[in-house]
Amino acid sequence: MTRESLKNGRARGLVVNAGNANAFTGFRGREAVEAIMSRVAAHLDCDPGEVFVSSTGVIGVPLPKDKANAGLQAAFDSSPCSWEEIATTITTTDTFPKGAAASAIVGGKTVHLSAIIKGSGMIAPDMATMLGYIFTDAAVEPGFLQEILSAANLRSFSCITVDSDTSTSDTVLAFATGKAGNAPLASFDDPGVDAFAAALNDICLQLAHLVVRDGEGAQKFIEIEVTGAVSDDSARRIGLSIANSPLVKTAIAGEDANWGRVVMAVGKAGEPADRDKLAIRFADKWVAQAGLAVDSYNEAPVTEHLKGAEIRIGIDLGLGAGRATVWTCDLTHGYISINADYRS
Amino acid sequence: MTRESLKNGRARGLVVNAGNANAFTGFRGREAVEAIMSRVAAHLDCDPGEVFVSSTGVIGVPLPKDKANAGLQAAFDSSPCSWEEIATTITTTDTFPKGAAASAIVGGKTVHLSAIIKGSGMIAPDMATMLGYIFTDAAVEPGFLQEILSAANLRSFSCITVDSDTSTSDTVLAFATGKAGNAPLASFDDPGVDAFAAALNDICLQLAHLVVRDGEGAQKFIEIEVTGAVSDDSARRIGLSIANSPLVKTAIAGEDANWGRVVMAVGKAGEPADRDKLAIRFADKWVAQAGLAVDSYNEAPVTEHLKGAEIRIGIDLGLGAGRATVWTCDLTHGYISINADYRS
Repeated sequence: MTRESLKNGRARGLVVNAGNANAFTGFRGREAVEAIMSRVAAHLDCDPGEVFVSSTGVIGVPLPKDKANAGLQAAFDSSPCSWEEIATTITTTDTFPKGAAASAIVGGKTVHLSAIIKGSGMIAPDMATMLGYIFTDAAVEPGFLQEILSAANLRSFSCITVDSDTSTSDTVLAFATGKAGNAPLASFDDPGVDAFAAALNDICLQLAHLVVRDGEGAQKFIEIEVTGAVSDDSARRIGLSIANSPLVKTAIAGEDANWGRVVMAVGKAGEPADRDKLAIRFADKWVAQAGLAVDSYNEAPVTEHLKGAEIRIGIDLGLGAGRATVWTCDLTHGYISINADYRS
Repeated sequence: MTRESLKNGRARGLVVNAGNANAFTGFRGREAVEAIMSRVAAHLDCDPGEVFVSSTGVIGVPLPKDKANAGLQAAFDSSPCSWEEIATTITTTDTFPKGAAASAIVGGKTVHLSAIIKGSGMIAPDMATMLGYIFTDAAVEPGFLQEILSAANLRSFSCITVDSDTSTSDTVLAFATGKAGNAPLASFDDPGVDAFAAALNDICLQLAHLVVRDGEGAQKFIEIEVTGAVSDDSARRIGLSIANSPLVKTAIAGEDANWGRVVMAVGKAGEPADRDKLAIRFADKWVAQAGLAVDSYNEAPVTEHLKGAEIRIGIDLGLGAGRATVWTCDLTHGYISINADYRS
């Protein structure tokens, strides 16, 4: 429903519920959303199409109308609350509320961006759909806001993974009120647009990293930098292949500098790669170069690095100028505990 | 090297070593294989190209020549041993030796097939490459043997997965001695070819299932049957998407009838699917049909089924006649323990 409304580029209200994803519920699910849109539209005196609705939680169970109505009434009656309270309300398996802020100077006006996100794995339509909302007082034309948000998404939310499972309900929405009073941004030629885009990029990256840091069972935050690929897209696919490999993720959990598993994950990406040009490093220590283990390789500093909570892996393919950085977390007993025992 | 020799379609010797995969070792690795081929060829009085070599184990470490030579000498000196002894010798992380046998009547002659395999995950070039060898006394033309082996592979080894990680070194070879004295099989029109192909299919399926049953940390054997897809290929891709989903595999480990995760995995396969036609069952109990939870759904018998060691999941897409069956295992704490602590 919200996907249809998005085309209009205008929103007055946003409703987010946690606990029930209202997915795989057929016409009953659609009716439930229409009822929420109508009720909020009446309250705000706007068009139902200007009310956006997101749901996260268990799937296959129709949204309970009584609970939805009671929730809406409570929202209508309450006084404004903090971003942190909102971020806390929409959590499900998240272990902490997640928010980020940034600002920029656009045409002499300071504009602010505030954002919240929930998600602790790309792992829905279960209890962990990623839902992110970015709000700014900058004036930005809707179509152009979508354009720069999509660009920011490609280098942030599209570059993170927890367990390779992806949600059909993953959502990131940006809202611009225009209250800051800047001349509306409508193209990359407008003054101040670079500063605003940089702030939006920054906030998306902050949010994306928070989701990975709260990855189910995560104990280590892993950054994978791929260089020398035939294109940026190819680099990103190789990075995600490594980031999604259970063997790489368990090796990191075990603090094991097992670069053979990284070689395997590069191979299974199916992207252009040449074994005899491949180089791999942990932090800044090259462990393999030109298709061979580095002769002078000393495992001690690498093992020390792997004992930390922030792991960096670098892969150079030696083929071209394509590059990408992706982020993930390790795969631990905690992930199994959370997901093997979750619903029951 | 063996890939090049395969083109000739003739083999006299097969050497398999476990403990060192001789992969990512560059020219030194190639030299080591050439030395083995020459030495065995001299012993058997054949061409070096008729000696096939497979290696499995740690990667990035050149094959130690002294150990290889000592192993060859021991093999030359020893008396013939049983299939089980051979199957045991080539294990790495396998928890039991794996073999299978079958027979068929071809042109009035009984032909035998014996096979061994090692692998407990599609998870190399680490210590768990899948290496399978099928031996038969039937007479079969090399090109035709490859053809029916490839067909059998498509419905067996290509339909299993343990953790989505795949090995570049996975190998299945078939050898036919012709000792049975049947008229050589050379095409699908030859008498007895159906019986031989059926026996070969059967033995491949037995071997493939053994690998899944020995999947790292596996406690449950999962069969996923996909019907109603637009094609058999599409059905297989959807089946593997479900079989590779960490969320589906942890749900089964937790004995949780969480069919929402199956819906998610169907969605992420990216194959044609229509939510409003999708049906899902555990064993023979439909839990969702036509895009909705089944009204009469009673979870008790499904939960009972999930407590067993053999789990069956069915997905009907309602779109066409495409079908496939794939097999996998659950994802447990055991998998994490094995792979987070493996090399060190």
